[in-house]
Amino acid sequence: MRDALVAAAFHLFLERGYEQTTVDDIVALAGVGRRSFFRYFPSKEDVVFPDHERCLADMTAFLADSGDDDEPVQRVCDAVRIVLRMYTENPTFSVQRYRLTKKVPGLRAYELSVVWRYERAFADHLRGRLASRPDGTLQADVIAAAVAAAHNNALRSWLRSDGQGDASAALDHALGYVQQAFATPPAPDDEEPEDVVVVVSRRGAPLWRVVQEIESALEQN
Amino acid sequence: MRDALVAAAFHLFLERGYEQTTVDDIVALAGVGRRSFFRYFPSKEDVVFPDHERCLADMTAFLADSGDDDEPVQRVCDAVRIVLRMYTENPTFSVQRYRLTKKVPGLRAYELSVVWRYERAFADHLRGRLASRPDGTLQADVIAAAVAAAHNNALRSWLRSDGQGDASAALDHALGYVQQAFATPPAPDDEEPEDVVVVVSRRGAPLWRVVQEIESALEQN
Repeated sequence: MRDALVAAAFHLFLERGYEQTTVDDIVALAGVGRRSFFRYFPSKEDVVFPDHERCLADMTAFLADSGDDDEPVQRVCDAVRIVLRMYTENPTFSVQRYRLTKKVPGLRAYELSVVWRYERAFADHLRGRLASRPDGTLQADVIAAAVAAAHNNALRSWLRSDGQGDASAALDHALGYVQQAFATPPAPDDEEPEDVVVVVSRRGAPLWRVVQEIESALEQN
Repeated sequence: MRDALVAAAFHLFLERGYEQTTVDDIVALAGVGRRSFFRYFPSKEDVVFPDHERCLADMTAFLADSGDDDEPVQRVCDAVRIVLRMYTENPTFSVQRYRLTKKVPGLRAYELSVVWRYERAFADHLRGRLASRPDGTLQADVIAAAVAAAHNNALRSWLRSDGQGDASAALDHALGYVQQAFATPPAPDDEEPEDVVVVVSRRGAPLWRVVQEIESALEQN
C-alpha cells in the first residue's frame, strides 16, 4: 500500500506537476482512502521522501552501535555511506525526485531540513566521541558538516549524470579528502620512543664540526 | 517604517507567540497599512530575518571584489565575519530571534534555507577560485560547509550565552581550526633550498659508524 501510494504520487507529480497534484488525486489513483495516505505520510511533501525516516533511523542505530575502538570520523564516514545507498538502491526514483525537488521550492526546503537532520546526527555522535578534546564541540560540528558536504557533492554529481557512474567510488574519494583534512595524529603508544640522535648540519660544514655536534648531542642526554 | 514594522512584529511575537500573531496585528500596532508591510517583507517569516538579504548582498559583493592575490579560504573566512557582525551589531534582537526560532519549526526551516544560501555563496566563490585544482568543486563544497559550520558553532554559543562574551574571538578561533585543516602547502619559492645533511642514527651506534654514514651521505650528492 505504501509503495503503491508513492508510485501513484510520482506518476501524477511527473504528469501534472507537484503543485497541481492533491492528496485526493493520489489516493484516487492508488485506489485507497485519504486516511490510508495519512497513516503513512503526514503530508504531501513526505511522500516525496518516503525512505528518509527509515534511513535516519538505520544510520542513528549504526552510530549508536559504535565501539570504543571505532575511529569516530571513520564511523561517521561509514554512516554517510548508508545514506548514499538509499539513493543508489533506486536510481530511477532518485533521479526523478532530484528533478522534482529542483523545480519546487517547498520540496527544496524540505530536503534541506532532512540534510540538516543527517548532519545533526553526525555532529551529535562526534560531540560524544570528541568530548574530551578541548575543542570537541567545534570539531564535531565542522567535521559533520564536511562529511555531509562531501556526500552531497558525490550524490549531486551522480544525480546530474542521471544515476550513471559509480556514486560509491565518488563518495569514497570525497570522504578521503575529508578524512585527510581532519586526520588525528595517532595517539602516542606505550613503547619507549626509539632512541635516536638527529643532527642537521649545513653541507658546507667540515666533517670535524659535524662530529663535534654529534658528540655534544650524545653527551647532552 | 521598516524598523517600526520589525519592532511591532517582535513585540507581538514575544507577547502572544509567533503563530498567534497575524500581519494585520502587526500593521495595526505599527499604525500602517497592509500594503506597506508587504512592500518591505514578502511574508510574515521575512520580518523575523529583516537583515539577511542586505547581509547576503554585502557578503556576495565582498567576495566578488576579491583580487587574484587573495587567498580563497581566507577570503571566505573574512566574508563569514560580515555575517557574524550582522548578529552582534544588535545582541538583544538576535537573542530574541534565536529563542523564537527555536520554538517555531517554520522559522527553523526558513533559517536553514538562509544558512544554505550563505554556504552556497561561499561554495560558488571557492569553486571559481579553486577551478584549476583536480578536485576543485569537491574542495569548494567541503570548505564552504566547514566555514559555515564554524560560524554557526561560534554564533550559537554566543546566542546561548544571551549575547554575552566575545563572539568575534570565538569565530576567529573556530575559523583557525578550519584554516588549519584546509591549509594549502605554500607554493615552492624560487630560492635554492638550504643545503643540509640530515643524519638519523640509533643512539647505540658507535661514533665511527655515524661518521661513516655522514661521509657516504655527503659523497652521494
